[in-house]
Amino acid sequence: MSNLSLKAAENLQKIRETKPLIHNITNYVVMNYTANVLLSMGASPVMAHAENEVEDMVAFAGALVLNIGTLTDSWVASMIMAGQKATALHKPIILDPVGSGATPFRTASAKSIIEKTKVSVIRGNGSEILSLGSQHSTTKGVDTIHSVQDAAATASLLAQELDTVLAITGPIDLVTDGSRVFNIANGHPLMPYVTGTGCSATAVIGAFAAVDEDYLTAAATALAFFGLAGEMAGKIANGPGSFMIHLLDALYTMTPEQLEEGCRINES
Amino acid sequence: MSNLSLKAAENLQKIRETKPLIHNITNYVVMNYTANVLLSMGASPVMAHAENEVEDMVAFAGALVLNIGTLTDSWVASMIMAGQKATALHKPIILDPVGSGATPFRTASAKSIIEKTKVSVIRGNGSEILSLGSQHSTTKGVDTIHSVQDAAATASLLAQELDTVLAITGPIDLVTDGSRVFNIANGHPLMPYVTGTGCSATAVIGAFAAVDEDYLTAAATALAFFGLAGEMAGKIANGPGSFMIHLLDALYTMTPEQLEEGCRINES
Amino acid sequence: MSNLSLKAAENLQKIRETKPLIHNITNYVVMNYTANVLLSMGASPVMAHAENEVEDMVAFAGALVLNIGTLTDSWVASMIMAGQKATALHKPIILDPVGSGATPFRTASAKSIIEKTKVSVIRGNGSEILSLGSQHSTTKGVDTIHSVQDAAATASLLAQELDTVLAITGPIDLVTDGSRVFNIANGHPLMPYVTGTGCSATAVIGAFAAVDEDYLTAAATALAFFGLAGEMAGKIANGPGSFMIHLLDALYTMTPEQLEEGCRINES
Repeated sequence: MSNLSLKAAENLQKIRETKPLIHNITNYVVMNYTANVLLSMGASPVMAHAENEVEDMVAFAGALVLNIGTLTDSWVASMIMAGQKATALHKPIILDPVGSGATPFRTASAKSIIEKTKVSVIRGNGSEILSLGSQHSTTKGVDTIHSVQDAAATASLLAQELDTVLAITGPIDLVTDGSRVFNIANGHPLMPYVTGTGCSATAVIGAFAAVDEDYLTAAATALAFFGLAGEMAGKIANGPGSFMIHLLDALYTMTPEQLEEGCRINES
Repeated sequence: MSNLSLKAAENLQKIRETKPLIHNITNYVVMNYTANVLLSMGASPVMAHAENEVEDMVAFAGALVLNIGTLTDSWVASMIMAGQKATALHKPIILDPVGSGATPFRTASAKSIIEKTKVSVIRGNGSEILSLGSQHSTTKGVDTIHSVQDAAATASLLAQELDTVLAITGPIDLVTDGSRVFNIANGHPLMPYVTGTGCSATAVIGAFAAVDEDYLTAAATALAFFGLAGEMAGKIANGPGSFMIHLLDALYTMTPEQLEEGCRINES
Repeated sequence: MSNLSLKAAENLQKIRETKPLIHNITNYVVMNYTANVLLSMGASPVMAHAENEVEDMVAFAGALVLNIGTLTDSWVASMIMAGQKATALHKPIILDPVGSGATPFRTASAKSIIEKTKVSVIRGNGSEILSLGSQHSTTKGVDTIHSVQDAAATASLLAQELDTVLAITGPIDLVTDGSRVFNIANGHPLMPYVTGTGCSATAVIGAFAAVDEDYLTAAATALAFFGLAGEMAGKIANGPGSFMIHLLDALYTMTPEQLEEGCRINES
């Protein structure tokens, strides 16, 4: 049991005690599930995207989560406005570049957010993350065409280039700030069969970043927590529908002690 | 067992028989769950927000439900257009001022809807409702920072000022038209852990108002029904995920007799 | 057991093997459930509606699904843009005319899409489908006021007029290309109590059309598959909530052999 297991448990405990407000500007498909994930784990979600109010709302928040699925120009503008306010207030920004690499619009939007705001953590699959760097990469829709292993070799360099923490999820998750690299083995094969599990993982990182200023450990422990909840759900699920529901129950019932016990983070 | 228990049962019976169409202009996060709540209980939901059609759609409806979560200017304009048509047609309008008090945009939008249309019932938590009056109030995001007890003292005065029925939900719900005050004790502690339970309660009030012209009793009996379904769900739930699903089942299976039996409304 | 039972099984097998990308431009209410339906059955959903990217996205897709619930002008424009690209690329377009006939805006939008793109299959209830022809029809919101039997008599003529496959769903589904007519008896009475089951059926047709170039058999076998999953879910459901979840599980667990066995398609 590593130091990170204890850190994971402490972070979860803090979230349950302080119920940080997480401001999400996210896509239509996953808004409901993301809010339920944050509520179930003990955080407090708010969704708000109007330019009239995003600066006011992010001022209350412990973290800002930006997700570029179902994107349009006006949503990109709101994300950048909220992100610049969060940057000024030194609040963590977590970016989910859904489908970056699949269309030029998604890739350009993700890069624009990264340039104009101070992003703390980017979570995506291998091909999404790789599309953000200078080397070119393409994706088949929002599905990954690169393995986590493909991504690992260049992840550290890319984290340095982008000056942020990268969280690349897959069968084994990889988290790096450009110097240290963690692998997280928690998770379940049914996760990719439920829409929004990736996006929700990003929001969970937001909640952990709201209570842990070391965004590298925040991201790693968040993914271990979410993955372990998936393992618990998977033991009793009959398919993706019941898995999705049991996952919410597990996020609610899991104790810090269970997380410390079940956490599988290794430094590589 | 009060007269309101019988009224609750009668209202539910009428909804099941007439399947009133409930027109919702509501936020992205809760659209799906709200529609499922209305379908499960026996009503017929429709979601439509385009200025091209809201007047046509509300003409078919038994009630109009307006909810200001995930708001933008164009949605406010649609809400007011639909609300003015509903006002002209003497159809009940139920307003959910999500996050009013949290940002100036939300508060101003809620007040604008109240000024420009004839709102029959407003449902919110204590701080949202208080933000609508002349005295100032602030909220931490969309979470309540005032207890129902805080709100009760001023609720009657505020109902008179706004000339509407107020439904303030919390561990104990309070419903008043400015002269009579009802407390509803039905409900379950897991409700706040599922996104959209408050918004869905507002929609349920819409369905009850479609069959009960006394909006005070419509609101009180609707909250008793929804709260009792929560109690039934809570008995077999393992967390917020299974609670959310069992709640839909309970809304569908509850008989008018069970509602008459389990209804806990008291006049104070 | 008809030839179509075998075809159904083969289509399902192909979907599981090739995981076709299904591009959806659909309504806010059902986006999440539709994505989960497609994921559960083995397809790969993407939701994208921005004019900046719909042409790029549909180029990757095996089918395009257009759904006019929660419609606005800008969404209609995106649907037509995506539809024209799909037409040029000879990809199947599946249209769900939600609420056509209920408001002039919905009817005009559905007709505009049909005129400007090459729609392969239209799925709706009887009154929605009838509203697309020259004879007039009205609907009570999005609920059907015509039985499938009412619709059957004119469906063949209408399919010829519109030069497309029509899939009219209800207790018994009817699918026709204007010359052949199939009836599909699979399904469950709880389906209309879950929002998005109709819209999801349309998306399932999209997945089948991505692997079966005969859109008549694609539509018929897709509805048999979805209806049979409903039957499986209905056997263990306690209401609409648990039904909705078991349905996702059944879409995931059903084998091609079970589909061949349970498929109830008859040519009339």
